Amino acid sequence: MRLQRGAIHAGGKLYRLANFDEIHVLGAGKATARMAQAVEGILGDRIFDGAINVPDGAGVALRRIKVHETGHPVPDARGVAGAREIAAIAKRAGARDLVICLISGGASALMPLPAPGVTLDEKQRVTRSLLACGATIHEINTVRKHLSAIKGGRLAALAQPAQVVALILSDVIGDNLEVIGSGPTVPDLTTKRDATAILRRFGVTAPKLTETPKRISNANNVIVGSNRVSMEAAKKTSRELGYQPIVLSTTIDGETRDIARMHAALVREARSSGAKRLCFLSGGETTVTLRGKGLGGRNQEFVLAALDALQDTPGVTIFSGGTDGIDGPTDAAGAVAVSSGKLALDPVPFLANNDSYHYFKKAGGLVKTGPTGTNVMDIRLLMIN
Amino acid sequence: MRLQRGAIHAGGKLYRLANFDEIHVLGAGKATARMAQAVEGILGDRIFDGAINVPDGAGVALRRIKVHETGHPVPDARGVAGAREIAAIAKRAGARDLVICLISGGASALMPLPAPGVTLDEKQRVTRSLLACGATIHEINTVRKHLSAIKGGRLAALAQPAQVVALILSDVIGDNLEVIGSGPTVPDLTTKRDATAILRRFGVTAPKLTETPKRISNANNVIVGSNRVSMEAAKKTSRELGYQPIVLSTTIDGETRDIARMHAALVREARSSGAKRLCFLSGGETTVTLRGKGLGGRNQEFVLAALDALQDTPGVTIFSGGTDGIDGPTDAAGAVAVSSGKLALDPVPFLANNDSYHYFKKAGGLVKTGPTGTNVMDIRLLMIN
Repeated sequence: MRLQRGAIHAGGKLYRLANFDEIHVLGAGKATARMAQAVEGILGDRIFDGAINVPDGAGVALRRIKVHETGHPVPDARGVAGAREIAAIAKRAGARDLVICLISGGASALMPLPAPGVTLDEKQRVTRSLLACGATIHEINTVRKHLSAIKGGRLAALAQPAQVVALILSDVIGDNLEVIGSGPTVPDLTTKRDATAILRRFGVTAPKLTETPKRISNANNVIVGSNRVSMEAAKKTSRELGYQPIVLSTTIDGETRDIARMHAALVREARSSGAKRLCFLSGGETTVTLRGKGLGGRNQEFVLAALDALQDTPGVTIFSGGTDGIDGPTDAAGAVAVSSGKLALDPVPFLANNDSYHYFKKAGGLVKTGPTGTNVMDIRLLMIN
Repeated sequence: MRLQRGAIHAGGKLYRLANFDEIHVLGAGKATARMAQAVEGILGDRIFDGAINVPDGAGVALRRIKVHETGHPVPDARGVAGAREIAAIAKRAGARDLVICLISGGASALMPLPAPGVTLDEKQRVTRSLLACGATIHEINTVRKHLSAIKGGRLAALAQPAQVVALILSDVIGDNLEVIGSGPTVPDLTTKRDATAILRRFGVTAPKLTETPKRISNANNVIVGSNRVSMEAAKKTSRELGYQPIVLSTTIDGETRDIARMHAALVREARSSGAKRLCFLSGGETTVTLRGKGLGGRNQEFVLAALDALQDTPGVTIFSGGTDGIDGPTDAAGAVAVSSGKLALDPVPFLANNDSYHYFKKAGGLVKTGPTGTNVMDIRLLMIN
């Protein structure tokens, strides 16, 4: 993707801005404020109008694009008001207009717009009931898309006949377009029938469902940021530093300490076969099942668990960080450490208490970047020196 | 290692059997019956005498080596009687004798010999108390080695001045000689002082501890079977079948389903970068935290969890099997499956109930070998076709 003053190259298409009457910028998500700032910085007054919904505190001052701070993760009335304005601008866009949509993680909650005849309260009741019955997030989203006036491709449908170019920042494993922010510009793969079946299975009642668009001809959806994009940059940098990069995967999830142990096992194998100047790169987002009462985040716990597992393999540099700069309820983005056969501080009691933050506070190694205003999940590195 | 009628090549040493007066065969472990059978098959009457301790039901008929079936995993008086005979033969061995020790997993419980002045009951009480206090297996073994007359190098010490060649089958991650069967022929790395500190820390009282040998000059310890040895064979075979083998690691442990998801993530990455005819090989032994009431084993659960995680990556052959032929409380050694976007049977409810056995019983894919009489942990394969 290339965004210039006179043109946008995106997804193999070229949009000459001179060919369009009005340019509208719409969107929602945790990283959308920064994205809008960048777009306004380049296109400036060429933007006719716009509106975005972002989390409380994430707002930035923009001249052409209206910024709504709205509730997250629980949607609120401010979110509905902002979503109404976004929908109204989309609806007004004509055949010679261009709509630039800026979608990032969190858009689903930040831009709630119940379908006509449905209230936000009703939608939330359905969500809570499904959650309580043990429905998966995929099942909940299937139902919610069919109670919405904006999710599941409907924002692009509203913008017809205008052209839509959606610039999407992925914070989900696998980068599925219809999943990121509930895919407001992406044809929905699920049907009203699927949603009805889910509601019936869990015995949850819901207001009238409406079908989502299955074909969208006016939207061009392009991933502009993702774990993979960041991973390619990390790969390039590690090569420049004289390491041979090996990308393990960008789609790693699961319980953090088990995943860390398996990373350690891969490093041990590589080391035992004589590898040197090797950099394992690994992306995705793991989870932590809390057992203790300490302070930490999945990235800090990853480094601590890998450090513990690599006591038999000294000299490995271990890093894990959240690209949003926020690791759990801490002021760190992650941690960095070097494995050693004689650690000054024993990881075991800190791991048992999920207290990775205080381990690295004592031993050194906290990485603090502050919130980055973006999120493409986590980046992990294990470097054999 | 090469064992022939007239000589043993082991660990870089050559033992010409003509140079020895008597050959004694001693040992213990779950795989030791089969090992003894093989040794007797080759050396025959050249063996002067011998005794081994093996689990109930694992006994085989041997002519020169006495086979004791003893309690496992809880040691019993039969184990002590057998261990006494093993110790007596070792003690009798002279300077011109050769002692062949056959050690495999489980030897620790199968060959109990409390130190003079300690009873089996006292040793077991100490073990139970430490377990109840949350001591690790490493801590428990450190204490037990200092309450034993045979563990932690003492069997080799008893055999002095005879030469000892110990043929060891590893069932532990990392193949640490002093860990396998509590290392009866291996210098102990832990001290009486370590054991005392552990007892004090957990507030457990114990009979008098005795120091273990720190230097052993008469023993040659050789690993004759291990996960790595089997992995090399699997690697060779996969190459012969036209696959490019990639050994991930032989030391993978952790919670089975998380480990399976990470394997799936590695396969997804390889596939997305265009890999074909690739075979990931992975060894070690994972664990399963039981949540459901179904039937299964760690290998079957691994295949099921990987199958679930690879629904977006069809055409991958997934195998996991226990080299002992026994996966959990089932009659299967493991399972094999091919990933597909449209599985006839949904893995999710079976995974939730830890019921991998019934999944593969219905869907097909159980691998049944029967008990193999050996154990070098598990072998996992993921083949991209």
